[in-house]
Amino acid sequence: MESLYSVDRLRSFIVRVIESVGLSGDFSPVFADCLIAADLRGVKSHGIVRLPAYVQRVETGVMTPSAAMQFSRDEGATALLDAANGFGQVAGQRAMSRAIEKARTHGAGIVAVRNSNHFGIASFYAMQALDQDMIGIVSTNSSPAMNPYGTLAPLLGTNPIAIAVPAGAEKPIVLDMSTSVVARGKIRHAALTGSPIPEGWATDAEGRPTTDPREALKGSLEPIGGVKGSGLSLMVDILCGVLSDSCLTGDVKTIVDTSGPARTGHFFCALDVSRFMPSQNFKKSVDAVIRRIKGLPARDGGRIALPGEIEYDLAEKRRREGIPLDAAVVETLNVVAKHYDIGRLE
Amino acid sequence: MESLYSVDRLRSFIVRVIESVGLSGDFSPVFADCLIAADLRGVKSHGIVRLPAYVQRVETGVMTPSAAMQFSRDEGATALLDAANGFGQVAGQRAMSRAIEKARTHGAGIVAVRNSNHFGIASFYAMQALDQDMIGIVSTNSSPAMNPYGTLAPLLGTNPIAIAVPAGAEKPIVLDMSTSVVARGKIRHAALTGSPIPEGWATDAEGRPTTDPREALKGSLEPIGGVKGSGLSLMVDILCGVLSDSCLTGDVKTIVDTSGPARTGHFFCALDVSRFMPSQNFKKSVDAVIRRIKGLPARDGGRIALPGEIEYDLAEKRRREGIPLDAAVVETLNVVAKHYDIGRLE
Repeated sequence: MESLYSVDRLRSFIVRVIESVGLSGDFSPVFADCLIAADLRGVKSHGIVRLPAYVQRVETGVMTPSAAMQFSRDEGATALLDAANGFGQVAGQRAMSRAIEKARTHGAGIVAVRNSNHFGIASFYAMQALDQDMIGIVSTNSSPAMNPYGTLAPLLGTNPIAIAVPAGAEKPIVLDMSTSVVARGKIRHAALTGSPIPEGWATDAEGRPTTDPREALKGSLEPIGGVKGSGLSLMVDILCGVLSDSCLTGDVKTIVDTSGPARTGHFFCALDVSRFMPSQNFKKSVDAVIRRIKGLPARDGGRIALPGEIEYDLAEKRRREGIPLDAAVVETLNVVAKHYDIGRLE
Repeated sequence: MESLYSVDRLRSFIVRVIESVGLSGDFSPVFADCLIAADLRGVKSHGIVRLPAYVQRVETGVMTPSAAMQFSRDEGATALLDAANGFGQVAGQRAMSRAIEKARTHGAGIVAVRNSNHFGIASFYAMQALDQDMIGIVSTNSSPAMNPYGTLAPLLGTNPIAIAVPAGAEKPIVLDMSTSVVARGKIRHAALTGSPIPEGWATDAEGRPTTDPREALKGSLEPIGGVKGSGLSLMVDILCGVLSDSCLTGDVKTIVDTSGPARTGHFFCALDVSRFMPSQNFKKSVDAVIRRIKGLPARDGGRIALPGEIEYDLAEKRRREGIPLDAAVVETLNVVAKHYDIGRLE
């Protein structure tokens, strides 16, 4: 049973909850906006459903809501932000803003973040570049889920890559993709409902292709393109975890592992298109590319959608009509609300 | 029938041929080195076998060996090189060198190239960053071969991405991957030999999966990860072709299409790791990651290889023992040699 909740109602609920565990009012809005952006775009797994996990990380003392983040290096077109084990959303917003400032001065800005936590959806930050007529490129490492190619141990994360490109009259193009064929959550869901998974999603503990979700959970997600996706995931890990000196491949903790700090690392890049050509011309060219693709014959007469377009349209709809939440999810959220003596989400 | 040819012999042969069509002695060595690097690394399709195609582009007047390349924009951490329809290898080497200089000054350097031509293997340029303790990221757009997701027209190129990461005692990690499952050349080869192709490589003209290489050649290569690889290829095209104002998605010509300039665009990024942590520490961490991965249990007891490792080892072997060339390829090269009254490749 799902009901619809307005963005405003969810935002104020998230803000109240997260401030109850100590996140300052300076930062609670960006945290709330990031979770809501995920729900608006249909990425339920990174939305408000994760709120209790963030709360738990703070309550168990493995995440620091009042972290004193600082740029430990900051020179020219690059910087390194030490997130001091604070919220990934706070670090992410700050790092991307700095990358954009640097791109305004130098044409390009690259900021790595160390000692951070789960930051939600990568496109939330990449899209910060759009209003500035910049291209945003954002990545994060994540907890082990995928075997490095040719091995039998899931050392690599699903390590997403988000790229946001401004358009003119058309909608911006926003790619936000993990380097695995599917998210682990889809396999967990299949295991819960007892349904088989399609071939190509995962391998079992011996590295054999499997359609049994329980065997898949003991094994590895499949990277996109085999050795290619595995290599890409490794490169994301190097740019996010190794370059930031946050932790080595395989050491990032999941959001629900409260045995210690997650030590997540991120990578943010902003690129000012006006350093290459007038922004207006670039955006007209992007419009032309979008129209050219949408003018092609469609496979099976289906809809042709550019990366991020379906999410953009869904977000518009949900901003108007509300975000659907399952009653079970709302109940979980209200357990948290009760604990902190906060008004229920109704 | 294959015979072995030393690097020196091939290099001097390539230099003589390409200087015969007007490439200056200042640039012929880098052109030769790029082709040889491909053959050394086992990427035959981008090696000396392509020499006649480059010659033909010059002879038919669609490529300019004496192109007056210049940086039409060059400020801060970014630049735009107009290759003036010259050799992609000359533009590539120059653009990557500039990106490295910029990274030394600003921490990061990003150079886009417009009006260029086929530049060989992307890793050749990305690897220029390694000796400088920098990370190199290089992309190029390429001629249409892949349907944008959901469409039936191969507008996208196989648009490769190369990322080179310096290591300490271990070999550097060098990823060089196209965004398609396989190269079109593999399908052409299967069509010639009349062998079926594996499922997942390509679709026919109606977008249906096919194992018939002739049907595949009328259709589309499959992108890695479906909608993900398609999106990634589009982003490469935007960074290379659109940002450089070279041409729109779908307009790049193949190396053998002599109906006009290819209008290829490239993208080069160098990132100075010492702006984030001491280079020595970074390289030690990369070594540790490599050893960690190589220490994992292997699937099927096979070899565990990091991206670029097999190519690195093959290059070492071929540098010692020579590069194998098929007699038919050598004969084609000698037809060119005879035309220019150059000593045969024996």
